[in-house]
Amino acid sequence: MKTPLLRLLILLLVLPTSTGTAAPLRNVILIIGDGFDDQHVTMGRNYLAGMSGTLRVDQLAFRAAVQVETLSVDGLPVYVADSANTATALATGTLTSIGRIGTNINDQDAQTIAELAMAAGLRVGLVTTSSITDATPASFLSHVSARSCEGPDEILGSTYYGIPQPACPQDARDNGGPGSIIEQLITSGAHVLLGGGQKFLNQTTIEGKKVHAVAEAEGFQVISDASALAAVDPNTRLLGVFDEETLPVRWRGTDGRTAEAAETSWLNQISDYLGEAKEPMPIACEANPDYGNTPSVAAMTEAALRHLSKDNAQGFFLMVESASIDKQSHKRDPCGSIGEIAQLEEALALATTFSEAHPDTLIIVTADHAQAAQILPEPSLYDKYPIPIYSPGLTARVQTPEGGLMRVNYATSNGFSEEHTGANVPLFSNEAGRSVLRPFMRQRDVHQAMRSFLLNDQVLSPGHSTTD
Amino acid sequence: MKTPLLRLLILLLVLPTSTGTAAPLRNVILIIGDGFDDQHVTMGRNYLAGMSGTLRVDQLAFRAAVQVETLSVDGLPVYVADSANTATALATGTLTSIGRIGTNINDQDAQTIAELAMAAGLRVGLVTTSSITDATPASFLSHVSARSCEGPDEILGSTYYGIPQPACPQDARDNGGPGSIIEQLITSGAHVLLGGGQKFLNQTTIEGKKVHAVAEAEGFQVISDASALAAVDPNTRLLGVFDEETLPVRWRGTDGRTAEAAETSWLNQISDYLGEAKEPMPIACEANPDYGNTPSVAAMTEAALRHLSKDNAQGFFLMVESASIDKQSHKRDPCGSIGEIAQLEEALALATTFSEAHPDTLIIVTADHAQAAQILPEPSLYDKYPIPIYSPGLTARVQTPEGGLMRVNYATSNGFSEEHTGANVPLFSNEAGRSVLRPFMRQRDVHQAMRSFLLNDQVLSPGHSTTD
Repeated sequence: MKTPLLRLLILLLVLPTSTGTAAPLRNVILIIGDGFDDQHVTMGRNYLAGMSGTLRVDQLAFRAAVQVETLSVDGLPVYVADSANTATALATGTLTSIGRIGTNINDQDAQTIAELAMAAGLRVGLVTTSSITDATPASFLSHVSARSCEGPDEILGSTYYGIPQPACPQDARDNGGPGSIIEQLITSGAHVLLGGGQKFLNQTTIEGKKVHAVAEAEGFQVISDASALAAVDPNTRLLGVFDEETLPVRWRGTDGRTAEAAETSWLNQISDYLGEAKEPMPIACEANPDYGNTPSVAAMTEAALRHLSKDNAQGFFLMVESASIDKQSHKRDPCGSIGEIAQLEEALALATTFSEAHPDTLIIVTADHAQAAQILPEPSLYDKYPIPIYSPGLTARVQTPEGGLMRVNYATSNGFSEEHTGANVPLFSNEAGRSVLRPFMRQRDVHQAMRSFLLNDQVLSPGHSTTD
Repeated sequence: MKTPLLRLLILLLVLPTSTGTAAPLRNVILIIGDGFDDQHVTMGRNYLAGMSGTLRVDQLAFRAAVQVETLSVDGLPVYVADSANTATALATGTLTSIGRIGTNINDQDAQTIAELAMAAGLRVGLVTTSSITDATPASFLSHVSARSCEGPDEILGSTYYGIPQPACPQDARDNGGPGSIIEQLITSGAHVLLGGGQKFLNQTTIEGKKVHAVAEAEGFQVISDASALAAVDPNTRLLGVFDEETLPVRWRGTDGRTAEAAETSWLNQISDYLGEAKEPMPIACEANPDYGNTPSVAAMTEAALRHLSKDNAQGFFLMVESASIDKQSHKRDPCGSIGEIAQLEEALALATTFSEAHPDTLIIVTADHAQAAQILPEPSLYDKYPIPIYSPGLTARVQTPEGGLMRVNYATSNGFSEEHTGANVPLFSNEAGRSVLRPFMRQRDVHQAMRSFLLNDQVLSPGHSTTD
């Protein structure tokens, strides 16, 4: 970002129009399934509801597709995104390049829907299963040039398994900037921050204070134990971090197995059309022993809703992220992703119940970008041909509760982690969304729709974009 | 199918209710993009309209997702479909197994929307870029146990590159059945049949007659030259076949190049983490020299609309298929698929113009199943890591008109042809669809919706299925 003063000025600019008229109480609950594209939605449906069943997202009143837009650093179109630039588009309506948080390609800050909400007197909460400093939550309440600038220890440069990560010198408080993502989050005015990221709270600011101490000075009740969630005083601001970085996921494959390569015979290694190939043995989804007493997305969402709505006549903006649909797909673990989809569904159930009691609540569920996993035929469509047919990538054959065998394939990269993909993503909304959403939108239009709903400042005309 | 008598009885059963009341003139135009899933829709958008642009399908008033359902021969859930069982679900509302045409897993005939329409006095047309006997068009007007039973020469068994294909002895006229797909199509009562498949018209029936002679005896004007399309007498039934089987596609990659493997150095072949990998050189989309004077989907659709609507007070059902989105994805040719998407868009433009003059026209665009292609990051998300990162499958880097580079990956199979995939598919509709469609449907529900619209026989209550 350029200067904190600029940011303050932008915030002040929206105040007169937003507070000039007594706006009705309005809430927005934005649920982001990271990587929750149509392949992953269908994986979740097949496993959790059955091939002919429906997920909760399927039962929502409105459905749309959302085009994901990314720019190169030179402003050219790029067809596959990351979670930083997409969360920035959703949060701010501004297109940017991969890795950027709340800033455009010229490093200018873009005002977020959460900042707009706070400027209008609404409360803001962020809930995630990643670190609260990870790209998606970060983009709603901070502005840095690179997603790697999560804490004071990283902002001037860091390494990840020995690989140098981008620094954000212009954002560092050392240089008069607003500081790392965690520093910006805890001083943003947010009411609720829940997820992982203890590691960053234990870092030290340039004044020599622990970050968690700064958070407490900002009025946050800081907790790190899931059992404290239900008991916490709902009259304070709440910061909960329940693991060092990403929270453990609920499910894994049998004995921790993820997708595996087909076993090919020596003849097959001479020629693709000779010998034999054996697909991996099926797996089932089982409880992840590392999950322990990690709070569920639903438990965090429930606490957030309690804190955000308690004695609040002004409404709120809440972002809830199931981050590990994507993270587990990078790791080729379909059960990890499916367990995280189950968690998203539980959070949606809570949001739906809340919206029934508070009708002016807009619920939007969407993904930030598409991901690697694909459901493949089991057996192959070419099973009858007398040659070995298998995926060149890694495959998991998942036994479903209804007695099917779902073959999930990961084949976007030879490396340690799968790639994102470039399809438009689904968007699901309750009835409240009908007035501001359209069947096809770009991510920046979703920002505009949330803003229109929350602040009543602009109504979209269906079929036309106001953000070109 | 079981017996022609049974089929006749089913047709007679619907007549009294359908003709008992004077139904208003209603038309359904169902446009199927074979394999037109969200990855392919986005590929088409990025190339044809730009990353931030909109396709015609994006501009339609209503959008939904459709779950694809397939059964095993034993009736268990199967998570990836083929075009035969999905077209059967769309055409008849009946779930079935892979390869079946208009029949359920017990080999019973399922009445199609086209047959229902004809029984109610409406006209029927099928337009496709595949052979008119291919799985998708076949499922709307014929009933056999296997999609390979396309002509009299195949119904008792055939081979494909030496591989034996399923026969349909119980369907053969030799055994008292209704005959092969082409024989059933030309005796179905259809008004318009346009696509490929000359090969099957030149086969000989058990009476020793050429199939095209039988078609002429049924009242079809038979043409095989695109230039005849515009000049043909609109007062007759029309059968046009413009190639031996599938029609050539409009576009291909530079010099006919399709997706290719990364070139890896010898060190990389020793270890994935050593050496170098070079992605294929970019391609552009260029005219396919084999396309010649093949009629476009739009030209065939225009002829079909003219024939179906000429002096017709009863309405019609028209199915239009862009078949080669899927077929070119099997062959790893993104430009082939994109050219076919462009053709679908042109047909949609015609359908939209027609519906403006005939407001009781329901337009639905949907896919039958998802397909292999995925858009991958260009460059890789892991570009900065000092190891070679590439797809284990085959990749095409397509230069887009707006100056981007779209990397399209095919990595579902080591073999000669890519696999289908299992995501739910998009559905797009004009305003007329709003009364009968819901945001989430199964393919069999789409059949029910078209039936409700066309025959006014049943109205779906939103949110509830009538076909469980």
